[in-house]
Amino acid sequence: MQEAIMNRPNGAACQPYDPRVSNFPRQLWWVAAHSAQITADSLVSRKLLGVDVLLSRRADGTVWAIEDRCVHRGLPLSMGWKQGDEVVCRYHGFRYDTEGKVTCIPTQNACPKTARVDSFPVVENPPFVWIWMGDPAAADPAQAPDFAWLRDPGWVWASRHMNVRSNYMLLKENVLDLTHFPFAHKSTFGALDDYESAAEFSYEDGVVTFVKRFMDQPLSPIYDRDLNLGGRHVDRIDMGKSISPAEHFFTATIRDPMREEPYLFRFQHLTTPQTNSSHHYWWVISRNYGLDPHPGEWFEQIASTAFREDKEILEAIQLRLNESPDPTRMPEVSAIADRGGLLARRQLRHFLEREQASAT
Amino acid sequence: MQEAIMNRPNGAACQPYDPRVSNFPRQLWWVAAHSAQITADSLVSRKLLGVDVLLSRRADGTVWAIEDRCVHRGLPLSMGWKQGDEVVCRYHGFRYDTEGKVTCIPTQNACPKTARVDSFPVVENPPFVWIWMGDPAAADPAQAPDFAWLRDPGWVWASRHMNVRSNYMLLKENVLDLTHFPFAHKSTFGALDDYESAAEFSYEDGVVTFVKRFMDQPLSPIYDRDLNLGGRHVDRIDMGKSISPAEHFFTATIRDPMREEPYLFRFQHLTTPQTNSSHHYWWVISRNYGLDPHPGEWFEQIASTAFREDKEILEAIQLRLNESPDPTRMPEVSAIADRGGLLARRQLRHFLEREQASAT
Amino acid sequence: MQEAIMNRPNGAACQPYDPRVSNFPRQLWWVAAHSAQITADSLVSRKLLGVDVLLSRRADGTVWAIEDRCVHRGLPLSMGWKQGDEVVCRYHGFRYDTEGKVTCIPTQNACPKTARVDSFPVVENPPFVWIWMGDPAAADPAQAPDFAWLRDPGWVWASRHMNVRSNYMLLKENVLDLTHFPFAHKSTFGALDDYESAAEFSYEDGVVTFVKRFMDQPLSPIYDRDLNLGGRHVDRIDMGKSISPAEHFFTATIRDPMREEPYLFRFQHLTTPQTNSSHHYWWVISRNYGLDPHPGEWFEQIASTAFREDKEILEAIQLRLNESPDPTRMPEVSAIADRGGLLARRQLRHFLEREQASAT
Ligand code: FES
Ligand code: FES
Ligand code: FES
Repeated sequence: MQEAIMNRPNGAACQPYDPRVSNFPRQLWWVAAHSAQITADSLVSRKLLGVDVLLSRRADGTVWAIEDRCVHRGLPLSMGWKQGDEVVCRYHGFRYDTEGKVTCIPTQNACPKTARVDSFPVVENPPFVWIWMGDPAAADPAQAPDFAWLRDPGWVWASRHMNVRSNYMLLKENVLDLTHFPFAHKSTFGALDDYESAAEFSYEDGVVTFVKRFMDQPLSPIYDRDLNLGGRHVDRIDMGKSISPAEHFFTATIRDPMREEPYLFRFQHLTTPQTNSSHHYWWVISRNYGLDPHPGEWFEQIASTAFREDKEILEAIQLRLNESPDPTRMPEVSAIADRGGLLARRQLRHFLEREQASAT
Repeated sequence: MQEAIMNRPNGAACQPYDPRVSNFPRQLWWVAAHSAQITADSLVSRKLLGVDVLLSRRADGTVWAIEDRCVHRGLPLSMGWKQGDEVVCRYHGFRYDTEGKVTCIPTQNACPKTARVDSFPVVENPPFVWIWMGDPAAADPAQAPDFAWLRDPGWVWASRHMNVRSNYMLLKENVLDLTHFPFAHKSTFGALDDYESAAEFSYEDGVVTFVKRFMDQPLSPIYDRDLNLGGRHVDRIDMGKSISPAEHFFTATIRDPMREEPYLFRFQHLTTPQTNSSHHYWWVISRNYGLDPHPGEWFEQIASTAFREDKEILEAIQLRLNESPDPTRMPEVSAIADRGGLLARRQLRHFLEREQASAT
Repeated sequence: MQEAIMNRPNGAACQPYDPRVSNFPRQLWWVAAHSAQITADSLVSRKLLGVDVLLSRRADGTVWAIEDRCVHRGLPLSMGWKQGDEVVCRYHGFRYDTEGKVTCIPTQNACPKTARVDSFPVVENPPFVWIWMGDPAAADPAQAPDFAWLRDPGWVWASRHMNVRSNYMLLKENVLDLTHFPFAHKSTFGALDDYESAAEFSYEDGVVTFVKRFMDQPLSPIYDRDLNLGGRHVDRIDMGKSISPAEHFFTATIRDPMREEPYLFRFQHLTTPQTNSSHHYWWVISRNYGLDPHPGEWFEQIASTAFREDKEILEAIQLRLNESPDPTRMPEVSAIADRGGLLARRQLRHFLEREQASAT
């Protein structure tokens, strides 16, 4: 079975992401925003999975999300204004509650039952707001990922939101194959890490995992920063996991023979499709050591510089796909190190098929 | 019959204006330009009803209009120059008379009979130039609208030309439902008028009419300006008429018990499709009182500020239509106040059907 | 036969260049670059005949060209860097030799045989690099045009590369009908030349030729410049040749009764399709007289000013084709002077048919 879906290095394969076709599951919790991006005063409009979504916050602090399109004559509701917890359309003043129901048509007494737009289940697990854009009945808030350690004072972290003009799967594949470091990040991570050969990959229960071990050796500078082991030999084990099309998780576990508890350094890559050829990307970088003094700007800069390098690469690839008369015929030769990326395609197929099965 | 074409507030309806399909009758006089925009020295190119049209003026002052595309190798004729009443193509010098006939090919003696482009009947009723882009044989200059009062010294007026990137029908519907004032024009007209409930609508002989009465009450500030009734109670009757897809006419008739003749305040909204998703819009604001001192800039500013607010709204709606994979499936729930807009759709259907009938 | 493919001045004809369809032969040497544009240090990316091509130079000075798209995950190779004669992909470091073969995948020992991109035969005949984008087996370097006189110290020349957003055939037709001079170049060449009637055209062996004689008359200023014949009567014979869809050649031969050897003034127009609606254009202007003092800036300015006038015209025509719902229905009436342009269409058909025949 795995053979059937793998591209073999010596086989003929083609680009699988056709910008004319969408490739995202809906029955899934996706990141909609950073908590701090949504306030009670503002109306945030954001295209998610091809749908224009309006995000705001109630007076009680809870986040809500509805379709950002007035059911009357189609004006984006985000052009209107808040009135208490409700939103008023700027054209003829239709008023919507946080469930998307029209509660007031200013020129008449009653509102027809059909006067409503879709509302979307949201869960806020700070620092992220998650959204469910599939069948609302199937939404289980307990399934929305929660990065609890980011709320633990024993950790330090930084996170940013980027808009990348490529299919989100290009980023998923990017973070599953870190052998691009010495080339794409020659001037940033490249000098700092050691991904010259492929990691070990596995696939189980819809999760892609890779592991790479750096045993009994000095720590590479990016992890050593603010730790100052002075070249002492340690074990470092990197583990990356594509948990779902929405979520990728990476931990470097550093075991120092002089210390019982491991040092942990994490990267998360959270992707949400915007259109077929663009996506939202939130990254998080965190660690449980070197908190004082706070790593400050360096912590954020190292990641955002490197991720801008990735963005430039992914967008250049996507541009060619967009311009091609037939993107599905662009040949693609895979290497051994692509096993992770190819498993991510398998994972995606798994999620799409599961969704299709549940729909019938 | 009326029922059949009305969207019911509780019925299912969808956006009827598909940017992939044109929705304008050709057998109609449309505004082509302000008189002042067309001079004998200049070649004005303007896309009207999807056709590139070249407008200019003869030495005798009469306006002419032909297709703006050289029949030779397709250069826009507007890139050329005038030679007497004729226009010379900038590429190889083909010369066209005001009827679109090629009168000279510089490198040969004779001109083939096929060497001609379409010419369009035009009528100038200052301050507007009207054009007929249907069957020329059916053009009756006497049917071109004439706003004679704008040439009467007892009136003061202002007018502007705007380019709006929306289907022209979005503007037609806008001016038939003034209940958008308190919302869309909250900071301009909104504070000045009283359209909190729907007007009375009727439809007869292809004309949509609305009437709204403000009886025995102080005049709202926009009408009172330069009139200074000092809060005296008057009757004001607003009447709006969509006379055709090209022409909307509005008069506020103010009857002061102290005076025999009514005060009149008029708005005209003249729309001409440019493409399926953009239109030309000329508005006129006029009144027969408060001439001295001239209302000056205020007169023009109040209207142009408000119409820019409408433009922003209509363009936001159209943008979503343009971006949608299937704009005709965007749901639309109508209110009682939409009766006018829905009758405008009926009116449009009437004009299109009449045209189709006359074509067979 | 010729009748069948000519548009008659009184016949009905339509624009033949549909931007939705490509119209360029591949089995032909096309200009890829000026020699000076390609260095060993740089990676030049250029879209030629719809294909993204990477051009560079070996240490030994020879030019090479391969497809500018990594066969791994599709990054443009031009975003990478040189390593000796090879190019390294900036994403995962695949390394390519000058034949397009992957010679190194950094994370594994072997490279699959399929890991290669197309390479294109190139010939450098300074100052031009020619490329063959058809069947490599059919490429005969000896057939690549060579403008040897440009390397002769008895000649002076200037050349530039322009990007024109029109189908290349619009330029081919332009340079075959110089009766556009008095109109398109009214303020540059127009004042300087005398193309008020059509030239004599002929077509033989796939080559379109025109001849125009200016006998026993003073030389027009553009040719007289730096020659200073002082109004003496001379014979000038212009000859233009569309040698292939890629190459147009023009010589004015000036015979002065006071001198045995003729003065020669040449223009070359080299066109290479970029997309269906854009092309690369290299012009060369050269002459074998007036070398000292060097004509300098004037020589280059006169041509580049005039060719910008052509560019503006061709792009305006193309824009209308691009915007038209059906460009193939735009009528076109030809004049006697179009015989050359119409023969160029016949020439193109000849090249396309020859190519199709050889493919089967
Ligand atoms: S479009 Fe929103 S209230 Fe009319
Ligand atoms: S394109 Fe107008 S004269 Fe040739
Ligand atoms: S895309 Fe070029 S090496 Fe991976």
